Amino acid sequence: MKVRLKDIAELANVSVAAVSIIINNPDSTRFSDETKENVLRLAAELNYVPNSAAQSLVSNKSKTIGLIIPDLENPFFSSLAKRIEIEFRNYGYTVIMVNTNEDYRNDAELIRFLYGRNVDGMLIALSANTYGHEKDVLEELEKLNIPYVLMDRVLNDLECNQVIFNNKVGQYVATKHLIDRGHTKIGYLSVRDGSLSGYFRHLGYEKAMEEGELCIHPELIKFGSFNYEFGYRETESIVKNGATAIVAANDLIAFGAIKRIGEMGYSVPNDISVVGYDNLEINDMLNNGLSSVDQNTDKLAISAIELLMNVMSGEKEIVKIVLEPRFVERESVKTV
Amino acid sequence: MKVRLKDIAELANVSVAAVSIIINNPDSTRFSDETKENVLRLAAELNYVPNSAAQSLVSNKSKTIGLIIPDLENPFFSSLAKRIEIEFRNYGYTVIMVNTNEDYRNDAELIRFLYGRNVDGMLIALSANTYGHEKDVLEELEKLNIPYVLMDRVLNDLECNQVIFNNKVGQYVATKHLIDRGHTKIGYLSVRDGSLSGYFRHLGYEKAMEEGELCIHPELIKFGSFNYEFGYRETESIVKNGATAIVAANDLIAFGAIKRIGEMGYSVPNDISVVGYDNLEINDMLNNGLSSVDQNTDKLAISAIELLMNVMSGEKEIVKIVLEPRFVERESVKTV
Repeated sequence: MKVRLKDIAELANVSVAAVSIIINNPDSTRFSDETKENVLRLAAELNYVPNSAAQSLVSNKSKTIGLIIPDLENPFFSSLAKRIEIEFRNYGYTVIMVNTNEDYRNDAELIRFLYGRNVDGMLIALSANTYGHEKDVLEELEKLNIPYVLMDRVLNDLECNQVIFNNKVGQYVATKHLIDRGHTKIGYLSVRDGSLSGYFRHLGYEKAMEEGELCIHPELIKFGSFNYEFGYRETESIVKNGATAIVAANDLIAFGAIKRIGEMGYSVPNDISVVGYDNLEINDMLNNGLSSVDQNTDKLAISAIELLMNVMSGEKEIVKIVLEPRFVERESVKTV
Repeated sequence: MKVRLKDIAELANVSVAAVSIIINNPDSTRFSDETKENVLRLAAELNYVPNSAAQSLVSNKSKTIGLIIPDLENPFFSSLAKRIEIEFRNYGYTVIMVNTNEDYRNDAELIRFLYGRNVDGMLIALSANTYGHEKDVLEELEKLNIPYVLMDRVLNDLECNQVIFNNKVGQYVATKHLIDRGHTKIGYLSVRDGSLSGYFRHLGYEKAMEEGELCIHPELIKFGSFNYEFGYRETESIVKNGATAIVAANDLIAFGAIKRIGEMGYSVPNDISVVGYDNLEINDMLNNGLSSVDQNTDKLAISAIELLMNVMSGEKEIVKIVLEPRFVERESVKTV
């Protein structure tokens, strides 16, 4: 049975209000030391746990943050979630995490769920397919009038607090690295539909190719999804069409490309060079690691948390933070 | 401003109780269709969100499950968490996830946190270092008297509902695979202190070696942590002491071993064979995938959920489920 304030009050022979005051503020001078000690001892002995539902109804503060993650199995997001959880613990907040499974219909539903559980604020990385439905999500958030910050995946022209990485610069630097190493026929595996990250990365690829005065061959460019299967499926035709290097819009796509290249009897980087994006931790563990664009999840976590703390403390001005990615060289690129 | 039942009641000119009944049960015949339509229209227009804190205080059911995960960045647990979340959604439950960061002090604290938030039940994978502190955690759970199921990491002789994998059998099968391929000097990289998984895996290794009438060389056996750095650090001496194969107690340790073997100028499997444990998804993406012991997270998620549903519906009998792992062969083992 759950122990209630009432049970303690009866045993201590004081009012329920007295028990509540003593437990929530043991320094209160309204009661004798003897009474306070008695109540606190009983609370400890009976293992009284304050009901946070009741507490948050009264205080309207729960010291809880809602975190919405699109795909827990994506190492970029699981790493980000872990950083956010650890960092908020230092501030005395507990993080409640929910997973949308990359389905925009869950975005709005889980925003309402977390709101109903009285979180003090939300950090949100939207589902990949939210593009086209952004208004639903934003309207929901504005109607609920809760402090929130969007992370990583944001929607075009949104006037809201957000922290993102500069996707165009990241893909530009990765592509330019291949050009600087002498490659001219450079394939591209990326995502176009419904993804703003994909949209801006594509602009970065094009910018580097144009600056290098290189021809963009349509047969070397494929658009699909941010996963291994897409890279595996589309790489063969890019290689057969003469590419000596492939830019992948994330590491999972790059892993698919490298696997297919191996099955075709070629090797990376001797026959084909490959660069990825996300700089997944696994790259440091492999003998032939992938050169990749690093989006530091620590930096993203800390910036998003600081921004949310400001919003929760009443700051009204909208802030958009753009973080710069960093290119990490490993063994997957060869000079030609 | 948050819209309350009271606001709707005033606008609709009915009592707060009437609004509550109509919103929670629109089929109620206690009110006219006109009144009901009016209330429901106002609730929709004002974007009324039921306060689940208030609701759960009344109903004592929150349709919410608490999930305690030790390390979100460990792909085994992020995959498990994702499966649990998707599966529970089908049952109409929302999962709130918290991360203990492998620190047993957080186990008890987060159990109390979730309890305070009125979850209907908990699924718990304990921190790796809970061994020796298991009584604190168990006592906490028993005192709170909340339905729970322990997953994967359980403590010796615990009389509680649990779903685990058979660690001894898994490590036995992996070791026997190397013996069947002709290896006799087989090193072992595992975890001993504070980990029951490590304890039972070690027994499995020893059983296979004894059955194969092979000598267990102390200089080929190292104990440390379930991570990459441990494997990387300890592999050199095992190789120098003449092992032709290494059994790693998880895939991350195996990745560290393979990296070090490569840096020593040897290759896997031509010079040294390696087997892992966990069968991480990345193994299917690499050209030279690691042979590994698969612990099916789908099976674990589904068994744990079914068991918890039974406990929540009042089942008192304690059930311990032991799932069998499966060995997956890839390219990291060579016959000698």
